Amino acid sequence: MITGLRPKFSGIISPFITPFNEDLSIDVEAVKWLARYEADGGVHGIFPNSTTGEFIHLKPDEVIELTKAVIESVGGKVKVIPGISANCTLHSIELGRELLDLGVDGFIITPPYYFKVSKEGLKKHFSMVAEALDTDIIIYNIPSTTGINIPIDLYVELAKEYSNIVGAKITHDSLIYLKRLIYEVKAVRKDFVVLTGMADYLLPNLMLGGDGGVLALANIYPQIPRNVYDAWFNRDLMKALNEYRRLLQLAKIYEVASSFPTAIKTALKVMGAPVKPYVRPPLTMEPKEVEEKIRKILVELGIVQ
Amino acid sequence: MITGLRPKFSGIISPFITPFNEDLSIDVEAVKWLARYEADGGVHGIFPNSTTGEFIHLKPDEVIELTKAVIESVGGKVKVIPGISANCTLHSIELGRELLDLGVDGFIITPPYYFKVSKEGLKKHFSMVAEALDTDIIIYNIPSTTGINIPIDLYVELAKEYSNIVGAKITHDSLIYLKRLIYEVKAVRKDFVVLTGMADYLLPNLMLGGDGGVLALANIYPQIPRNVYDAWFNRDLMKALNEYRRLLQLAKIYEVASSFPTAIKTALKVMGAPVKPYVRPPLTMEPKEVEEKIRKILVELGIVQ
Amino acid sequence: MITGLRPKFSGIISPFITPFNEDLSIDVEAVKWLARYEADGGVHGIFPNSTTGEFIHLKPDEVIELTKAVIESVGGKVKVIPGISANCTLHSIELGRELLDLGVDGFIITPPYYFKVSKEGLKKHFSMVAEALDTDIIIYNIPSTTGINIPIDLYVELAKEYSNIVGAKITHDSLIYLKRLIYEVKAVRKDFVVLTGMADYLLPNLMLGGDGGVLALANIYPQIPRNVYDAWFNRDLMKALNEYRRLLQLAKIYEVASSFPTAIKTALKVMGAPVKPYVRPPLTMEPKEVEEKIRKILVELGIVQ
Amino acid sequence: MITGLRPKFSGIISPFITPFNEDLSIDVEAVKWLARYEADGGVHGIFPNSTTGEFIHLKPDEVIELTKAVIESVGGKVKVIPGISANCTLHSIELGRELLDLGVDGFIITPPYYFKVSKEGLKKHFSMVAEALDTDIIIYNIPSTTGINIPIDLYVELAKEYSNIVGAKITHDSLIYLKRLIYEVKAVRKDFVVLTGMADYLLPNLMLGGDGGVLALANIYPQIPRNVYDAWFNRDLMKALNEYRRLLQLAKIYEVASSFPTAIKTALKVMGAPVKPYVRPPLTMEPKEVEEKIRKILVELGIVQ
Repeated sequence: MITGLRPKFSGIISPFITPFNEDLSIDVEAVKWLARYEADGGVHGIFPNSTTGEFIHLKPDEVIELTKAVIESVGGKVKVIPGISANCTLHSIELGRELLDLGVDGFIITPPYYFKVSKEGLKKHFSMVAEALDTDIIIYNIPSTTGINIPIDLYVELAKEYSNIVGAKITHDSLIYLKRLIYEVKAVRKDFVVLTGMADYLLPNLMLGGDGGVLALANIYPQIPRNVYDAWFNRDLMKALNEYRRLLQLAKIYEVASSFPTAIKTALKVMGAPVKPYVRPPLTMEPKEVEEKIRKILVELGIVQ
Repeated sequence: MITGLRPKFSGIISPFITPFNEDLSIDVEAVKWLARYEADGGVHGIFPNSTTGEFIHLKPDEVIELTKAVIESVGGKVKVIPGISANCTLHSIELGRELLDLGVDGFIITPPYYFKVSKEGLKKHFSMVAEALDTDIIIYNIPSTTGINIPIDLYVELAKEYSNIVGAKITHDSLIYLKRLIYEVKAVRKDFVVLTGMADYLLPNLMLGGDGGVLALANIYPQIPRNVYDAWFNRDLMKALNEYRRLLQLAKIYEVASSFPTAIKTALKVMGAPVKPYVRPPLTMEPKEVEEKIRKILVELGIVQ
Repeated sequence: MITGLRPKFSGIISPFITPFNEDLSIDVEAVKWLARYEADGGVHGIFPNSTTGEFIHLKPDEVIELTKAVIESVGGKVKVIPGISANCTLHSIELGRELLDLGVDGFIITPPYYFKVSKEGLKKHFSMVAEALDTDIIIYNIPSTTGINIPIDLYVELAKEYSNIVGAKITHDSLIYLKRLIYEVKAVRKDFVVLTGMADYLLPNLMLGGDGGVLALANIYPQIPRNVYDAWFNRDLMKALNEYRRLLQLAKIYEVASSFPTAIKTALKVMGAPVKPYVRPPLTMEPKEVEEKIRKILVELGIVQ
Repeated sequence: MITGLRPKFSGIISPFITPFNEDLSIDVEAVKWLARYEADGGVHGIFPNSTTGEFIHLKPDEVIELTKAVIESVGGKVKVIPGISANCTLHSIELGRELLDLGVDGFIITPPYYFKVSKEGLKKHFSMVAEALDTDIIIYNIPSTTGINIPIDLYVELAKEYSNIVGAKITHDSLIYLKRLIYEVKAVRKDFVVLTGMADYLLPNLMLGGDGGVLALANIYPQIPRNVYDAWFNRDLMKALNEYRRLLQLAKIYEVASSFPTAIKTALKVMGAPVKPYVRPPLTMEPKEVEEKIRKILVELGIVQ
């Protein structure tokens, strides 16, 4: 069940929230603090400019600023893998080139999300990026925001044709899709990493042969998903299961909040972290009653008192 | 059936394609030529930074450059109403402020298109924009790209609460939606303009009480939709019907092309217009065989020989 | 614009509601009365065992009873075209054979609606039925209930291969689909009839080259859709438009009711027709307040006082 | 992790295929043989008139015939829980009454699947059935065929209000839905059974606190899902995992076949079972090449040689 060597991006990766000041500029000190907190808590990698990090609310200069701060804080200790998603292939490449100079460990990229491009269009987009950027690339399927479900056979083709396309992040509530992707892509490339983007799928993904998770909850309490991951590879299934159930408890914060970013930022506030709960519009901060519900969930888990 | 005074943005508006040079920079001369061509051909307004204009492939500086060129070419002769759609409300407002200084006649804006925000989030987004920008605003519903179908009752609320929210552009293949929107929004504000974004809906929209269309085909041959519009208001229903049928013939170019922008740009090439067919990736230019199919459609209509 | 000979099923057809007694047995007297009322009011055909007629709530014996009563009442005066939709092809054929003996003028049939069969499965279903039943068959596309959108190219194939597959009923809120179907199917078979199943589409369908409508509102007030149809073919576009607008007013009863059958039956009750408003569960009769809203709509149209 | 007493319908249930003779009548001998085979193989219950059993292709008399044969074969040894799904509530109740006289152990029922009834309509449907039939009822959510996703809060309401509504079968590819259902319905009624209808979900369902599966693969090789179930409750997680992986291998037959019923019937043919592969139209038997692919899957698992 458990293979010896694990692929490079196997593990727990945090889709990093973007801390803001009250004036909605990036709070660089909070960025550095949170990156350290997550690295100390056990994440294998940090993914700035993520969906949970409101990447579509950031300008290219801000992405540089954010990524630079993360690297200054934890570069070398954990992998830093920023997002370079954009509607225009040229914008992804241009941003990628600037970030490469900072010394990142790879990139994560979704499909374009306005035009619903065909499979051919998707292949062109990812191929051009893989050819232009000399680093590892993880392709991120999140149909609920992009409106596109990346075909499994496109993953297979890209895995075969581009050695620097090294993995998939899957944020799609379908066990069938996840299973077929793992079976089909690993049949052609054993070291292709398959990461889930949903906490509920962490242990099922490992059971199916996947490699870990890119989980927003790792911004709050990285130890729990890390424990699932470690217990799994230590063959301690009972512990993996128990920690997974704690993770599911923690995931309840999504059921009470209005968005992923606000769920995470409110939880950090409740935990007393030096990260302010500001978000950029049209997102809005959670009201007091949501904060109280989140507190209750964290208290039940013993994360706060 | 035909009211005396028509609302300000009643008529035929062109969602302006963005002409590019071979290096994919904006072709300013082509912009000016095309704007003049469309104005001479009868459009009441031009909408730069549109969906057909690949707005999600342009940077803010380029939107300024593009809009400035349109205004220099036809400002004062036809209305210039740029798009300011963005995922972040702040980005829409910032772009809008810069464009206002150029002397635009209003703005068109879609919902955010990555996060699928709630009705409350949509209301916040549009309200903040309407409050920040002292000009007329048209709200653009295009669920096939944004993944959000703007609720009719949100249109009604915004029409009641914001005097500078003056209209709707509807690119949604549903006669039922269009009818209900027209009936409900005009019940609270007679001068609220309802424009279709689909050629097939131009005459039905007028029949239901709507006010015209924002039609990409106006980039090619503005006379046809203009004839439909004029014939309708001149009570010449037979002529309106005959011109509508010609418009439907012209719309066949969409059935053979891979995207709206490439359909329009290829048609312009076939017509010998000084507009090059380049598009930004992941879009790709149409191959020769599509060009020939488009030529055939234009020949049948007598637009080219 | 208007061709000389019209196809056999061109016109206004009523998808007949099924009147029930209080014990939910079929009210044969009401069936006969209503069929006469509709024939006198101008329908060209009656379609018993329809969606609006709750066909999925009837047993085969009841379909025979219902159709027999319709034929006794108006057979020979208007066409009688019962539905034979079923999940199992064999059930459609068996029912069809029994109905053929009663002397019907043709059949209307939807796709199977539980399993979402492939295009090949659909073709098999319709082909077997067309081969087994020696009469005219209209294929009915209603994706909102069946979960299947019949591909346009399947219509084209069937139109070419089966001379007794003579038409389409389209209950699908898409002007684009309707246009493409009309253009493509009539290109291969001029006499293939295209009927809309939605009141809002009656005049647009005629404008696009379609042939009429199968409209539940014809159960209430057949004169209005009939007037639209006649005015259209008499080239009186202004009258067609005005009657179409009255039809849209009448269609408002759907916006206040909980289902199509209850909307129609409540309207008949308000109009004082000898048809009781009972429906079979899980449908439920409309409460008093819905009845009052429907009365108001009918009063505004001058249908009741 | 493992509670002492398990709810009544906890376990592995077979959604029984319906064996047909070449003339498409029910093959009663094959029914009896297969029921015995499954009972001997370890199923806790058999569900005749199921989706996999083509219930929408059977007439009420045939359902009686089929169920009677199952009871004669294995009644008393395993639970017999026929389906009573229908579009009309009255039809479900009528069929249920006839089946009750045969001595069944309960019923399974989907929502109506033609009209997309509201939550209120669903509640009426299930409530009337629960009130009319004095036995246990399992409510079956299968949105891919019915077009309706039963709201979790409706399950909670019904669980609270009807003691004879005792469980849920969930055939919906969503881990999030399954988790929330289990958490919310078991919070109000601990003994409410939650069964998955998809093989891929068997072990995840148990991990989340669910109670087993209604799995078509139990028609072929009941030992594998039974082993997963037993190992889980014996706390032998490694064995549960290994058997689950064998189950996933077996589930590959669905990827090569054109439907669930034909996948199962072809596998039985390949295994040499005395069950013929006939299905009712519009379904069609699998061609030779699919049979060979299924053989290969069964060979790899050691089920056939």
